[in-house]
Amino acid sequence: MVDLDIKALTFDVFGTVVDWRGSIGREGSVWGDTKKLELDWFAFADTWRGLYQPAMEKVRTGELDWINLDGLHLMNLHQLLGEFGLDNLNKEELNHINTMWHRLDPWPDSVAGMNRLKTKFTLASLSNGNVALIVNMAKRARIPWDTVLGAEVVGHYKPEPQAYTKSVELLGIKPSQTLMVAAHNSDLIAASAVGLRTAFLRRPLEYGPNQSADTNPTADYNFVAEDLIDLAEQLGT
Amino acid sequence: MVDLDIKALTFDVFGTVVDWRGSIGREGSVWGDTKKLELDWFAFADTWRGLYQPAMEKVRTGELDWINLDGLHLMNLHQLLGEFGLDNLNKEELNHINTMWHRLDPWPDSVAGMNRLKTKFTLASLSNGNVALIVNMAKRARIPWDTVLGAEVVGHYKPEPQAYTKSVELLGIKPSQTLMVAAHNSDLIAASAVGLRTAFLRRPLEYGPNQSADTNPTADYNFVAEDLIDLAEQLGT
Repeated sequence: MVDLDIKALTFDVFGTVVDWRGSIGREGSVWGDTKKLELDWFAFADTWRGLYQPAMEKVRTGELDWINLDGLHLMNLHQLLGEFGLDNLNKEELNHINTMWHRLDPWPDSVAGMNRLKTKFTLASLSNGNVALIVNMAKRARIPWDTVLGAEVVGHYKPEPQAYTKSVELLGIKPSQTLMVAAHNSDLIAASAVGLRTAFLRRPLEYGPNQSADTNPTADYNFVAEDLIDLAEQLGT
Repeated sequence: MVDLDIKALTFDVFGTVVDWRGSIGREGSVWGDTKKLELDWFAFADTWRGLYQPAMEKVRTGELDWINLDGLHLMNLHQLLGEFGLDNLNKEELNHINTMWHRLDPWPDSVAGMNRLKTKFTLASLSNGNVALIVNMAKRARIPWDTVLGAEVVGHYKPEPQAYTKSVELLGIKPSQTLMVAAHNSDLIAASAVGLRTAFLRRPLEYGPNQSADTNPTADYNFVAEDLIDLAEQLGT
């Protein structure tokens, strides 16, 4: 590995560290059965996630005041209820569905890879997820963050440049000493534009078996890795 | 233990989790010898710490714009240089002294007790220390935070009420589901005033062998513990 003087790794979370589609699909299917709900929870996850960027964009442009991701998820969930036959759920059941994002499973390599990376680097989430979401997810899945940074802490949703620069500033290091790890080209391109180093992680099943976007790096990154164990290997941990 | 429905423990750090006086005294003595500096580093630590509250008070009252604790420590350090014969240090040496706060040692029970507490509760720092300081300290000493909260994240120094309420809000829980752990009565009284539960930890040597303040609880707290292993025990972990 080229010596880049990297001190900390900042991670995208949804899709990069955890499998949101598979987790919501699986938990929804099991829970839905107990409620006699008949729907395709994988399709439900896809549609829900489809509302994610447009909702955040309303916050980025100022059309909406700051709402954290739990709030945006709930707002979006209300839009889906009719389409998926969920109109009759009560508030507790809706909260159960909304907090499925707090219970996402890591990809099989994530925790093992991050435990190796943690021996040498500071590991911080740099996600659009809110603090409680990321903390609860980590607690359940044993994701070994050193700390939680990102959108809610700095008040900016990625890919706004401040989401990256203010997170790095809190770590007391330079952007060039920070390696942004993500499975999404747009995230890495935005991080790179403000001076962070970049690692592209392949997550070819994030969007299910027919994924077409982000299957390959579309720009020149410092690292390209097959998974987090491969990245740990490449970084000498 | 009475069932208080506690979900998270928020910790004061300086004096409660780590021994700032002993650590600066010890590291300073060793490092000072290599620099042929002759001073009492324990007295130096006491004097430096004595400037801590007045400096923060200038930020609380708005006399100073927001400065994080690394910044306040450096400002205060410059005031001490003459008194302790340190006028001739260069910038790098001053930075070395200032970051002694990043290298404080935990009290002997801290890491063991917190590892037990972590099995059942979310553990967050709720300190006036800045994020980089707390993260670097934890990394070196293996303090097992789930996340770092407190002054820099929420933009308020304790004992301002927002330091507590905004930290708790980020955890997505109620103040009553949060247990503030501290060795200082003033911290716990402020936390309690905004609804947090409280645990007083005895740290009779924080200020050295002649400590007179905070040797005993001066108000009615939910828990009083001899150390963090005792607290882990009392909380059933």
